[in-house]
Amino acid sequence: MNLTKKLVAEFIGTFWLVLGGCGSAVLAASFPELSIGFVGVSLAFGLTVLTMAYAIGHISGCHLNPAVSFGLWTSGRFSTSELLPYIFAQVLGGIAGAFILYIIASGKAGFDITAGFASNGYAEHSPNGYSLISVLVAEIVMTFMFLLVILGSTDKRAPSGFAPIAIGLALTLIHLITIPVSNTSVNPARSTAVAIFEGTWAMEQLWLFWIAPIIGAILAGIVYKLFESNEN
Amino acid sequence: MNLTKKLVAEFIGTFWLVLGGCGSAVLAASFPELSIGFVGVSLAFGLTVLTMAYAIGHISGCHLNPAVSFGLWTSGRFSTSELLPYIFAQVLGGIAGAFILYIIASGKAGFDITAGFASNGYAEHSPNGYSLISVLVAEIVMTFMFLLVILGSTDKRAPSGFAPIAIGLALTLIHLITIPVSNTSVNPARSTAVAIFEGTWAMEQLWLFWIAPIIGAILAGIVYKLFESNEN
Amino acid sequence: MNLTKKLVAEFIGTFWLVLGGCGSAVLAASFPELSIGFVGVSLAFGLTVLTMAYAIGHISGCHLNPAVSFGLWTSGRFSTSELLPYIFAQVLGGIAGAFILYIIASGKAGFDITAGFASNGYAEHSPNGYSLISVLVAEIVMTFMFLLVILGSTDKRAPSGFAPIAIGLALTLIHLITIPVSNTSVNPARSTAVAIFEGTWAMEQLWLFWIAPIIGAILAGIVYKLFESNEN
Amino acid sequence: MNLTKKLVAEFIGTFWLVLGGCGSAVLAASFPELSIGFVGVSLAFGLTVLTMAYAIGHISGCHLNPAVSFGLWTSGRFSTSELLPYIFAQVLGGIAGAFILYIIASGKAGFDITAGFASNGYAEHSPNGYSLISVLVAEIVMTFMFLLVILGSTDKRAPSGFAPIAIGLALTLIHLITIPVSNTSVNPARSTAVAIFEGTWAMEQLWLFWIAPIIGAILAGIVYKLFESNEN
Repeated sequence: MNLTKKLVAEFIGTFWLVLGGCGSAVLAASFPELSIGFVGVSLAFGLTVLTMAYAIGHISGCHLNPAVSFGLWTSGRFSTSELLPYIFAQVLGGIAGAFILYIIASGKAGFDITAGFASNGYAEHSPNGYSLISVLVAEIVMTFMFLLVILGSTDKRAPSGFAPIAIGLALTLIHLITIPVSNTSVNPARSTAVAIFEGTWAMEQLWLFWIAPIIGAILAGIVYKLFESNEN
Repeated sequence: MNLTKKLVAEFIGTFWLVLGGCGSAVLAASFPELSIGFVGVSLAFGLTVLTMAYAIGHISGCHLNPAVSFGLWTSGRFSTSELLPYIFAQVLGGIAGAFILYIIASGKAGFDITAGFASNGYAEHSPNGYSLISVLVAEIVMTFMFLLVILGSTDKRAPSGFAPIAIGLALTLIHLITIPVSNTSVNPARSTAVAIFEGTWAMEQLWLFWIAPIIGAILAGIVYKLFESNEN
Repeated sequence: MNLTKKLVAEFIGTFWLVLGGCGSAVLAASFPELSIGFVGVSLAFGLTVLTMAYAIGHISGCHLNPAVSFGLWTSGRFSTSELLPYIFAQVLGGIAGAFILYIIASGKAGFDITAGFASNGYAEHSPNGYSLISVLVAEIVMTFMFLLVILGSTDKRAPSGFAPIAIGLALTLIHLITIPVSNTSVNPARSTAVAIFEGTWAMEQLWLFWIAPIIGAILAGIVYKLFESNEN
Repeated sequence: MNLTKKLVAEFIGTFWLVLGGCGSAVLAASFPELSIGFVGVSLAFGLTVLTMAYAIGHISGCHLNPAVSFGLWTSGRFSTSELLPYIFAQVLGGIAGAFILYIIASGKAGFDITAGFASNGYAEHSPNGYSLISVLVAEIVMTFMFLLVILGSTDKRAPSGFAPIAIGLALTLIHLITIPVSNTSVNPARSTAVAIFEGTWAMEQLWLFWIAPIIGAILAGIVYKLFESNEN
């Protein structure tokens, strides 16, 4: 029962991350002249996490991201038994968010899913043509830093209550840097949710957006332990 | 007397939401080159709520929105006896905000109220041509999520003092996603205030921007109860 | 001695408000393509206050604005004996900020002070051609709301420590709405500082940017007393 | 051992400042139409500091900047014995950040390091052609104000926990004002890191971006002492 509540919270939170983040990109990034641009999309992704972290942080911890769950598990702050259920709820929630986004977006004449539906990609599917290696490095390093911010700002020694601001705005920052590179994932659930709807190249390139974020997250979990040992 | 103070606060707060949010759209969204665009309008709407929540949250709870009052009432956090007076004060405050905006905006040669005066609409009056169904779904889902953020971030288990940031920036996020869809309402008082001045199509389509936000808010009040029962 | 420290703090803070806010407008608002636009200028003005309120709030209260000092004095939170010294320090600090801005800005070929130097104006000197009445109403109402946010967010019943965020972002919001109207003052010291350097029309129109903000601030001081009486 | 942890934290933090701040400029500032522009780059720089201050503030104090270390040392809050090791770790971390940025950025056809790689410069290498004197004054004054915000917001009398917000957003503000002037340094480690990769003019002009920030920081350390003496 307790786990059920957590999973419902993770479902709703990841639903919001995909609907809000990818939704801002699909619906508002290319409006003529008044477009929100990459700054708006970056803000939107970060604010989905900031708002949910205050709304459901006390329920599920607000991971909303399989890489985050893996990173917290590596650092010893998340139980092995909850790891797979969390990831399952996150992926399902993300797909639900993409589904609602599809319903809204397709209610406009000329909607074209082949424009990408905010999917992540490399090489010819990188927004600005970055190579597989560039995207791999970017996704590993960005997720590594994202997890360091999560682990550090939720450390007992950090000021209490501010972690959602630090974590949400870290996701905004990561998007400000890497939307042109990979359309920014650092989150396998987000990548999977929209790739299913895009259905062609996004599915073929999806492997990278599971492997790279999880590698980065696990590395961060290991590195942060250095800062925890012994002293206060 | 106590209720009077609350109603004055709600009046002033909704005055600010309409003057600030719709005002940024009417006055600053289309300035050549330096325009604030949809990012600026999104920020403005969110900041009206963030600033008022710190300014009058301790007086009236800072609803500023009939849907918010309905959602809090559904979740059992707001009394039945205050529901209608709050909504009345909100609508009046919104109209007052639109009136001041009209006075300022009309002091410029070429001001044209038929440009919409930041009214909400669907189909041919959706900013980017989204259908009635798209707008209906968007307004219900966005208000649902807005209320979840409100209910979650003001939960006793959430960090104290941060709710205005989460709630204000949730409104910014919602605008980043859905301005092109419906011009973003999630607030019947805001829609009513400017529709009265636009006077034609905005009045005809106003029904949707009462029904959809209130449905979404009531659903959120019901869903959030799942997270409250029993345990701490 | 204690007062001296406060006055030095007000001098430095208003120096920062003018150098940062007007500086962003003069130096960065019109850079081709990458320009910060009105969103960037709005953020800059707000962040000068947010950063200073955390930096010197515990020293002088961080007014940085004669209208703020008047509003706090009206509400009984600021002593009559300090009112004039504060205003004097604010105006001097603002002029010093404009002077440093002039030194930086004039180090570029083609710098032209007659472009306005971020001065406030009405009618033919309103950025978008708004009438004297529009500007008068806008400045009174915006300063009124600014002071309500200040008085409310620093109320003992409001969450502690967050007022600088609410107040700084209120100033950002006010700029998002009214830069096209009056170039946004709500602060006689800011208007005076740059008008002196512009030297012609800005000096002639300066009277409005003393009278309107102070009227709005005094009204807010009176209205907020309604919320303070008797009960907790 | 304790010092080692601090140095690792400073290395990672400055790595993030250069990768995130300069990375946003190199990768995302000039994307056609959706470009993040100077507002996005300003946000990115500030958010690197905000996120790291919550993540590692409790470990190393999160200086990430030789000028900050000098300023804190001048004000008596940082030990002489740690000054040089901190600066060394910061410069190394910055170079590592620039190296990862180079790897990502060079994975795109047509990448051209001679576009500047986000280096700081004056005169013909100022983004908008500002003179050496303008850049010198701007860097001294901006670092002076940056340190005042740091010293004030971390003062015992300031609200606890908010300093990372004030400090991070102060860096955003400084970029909003001075990117067109000097590309904004206020941080010798950041300037050095990218100048090494640019390799020609940026190395020749690097001296200014060590001297000016450190002068400004030391002056702030001296001035802030005025506010500390005697009274509470």
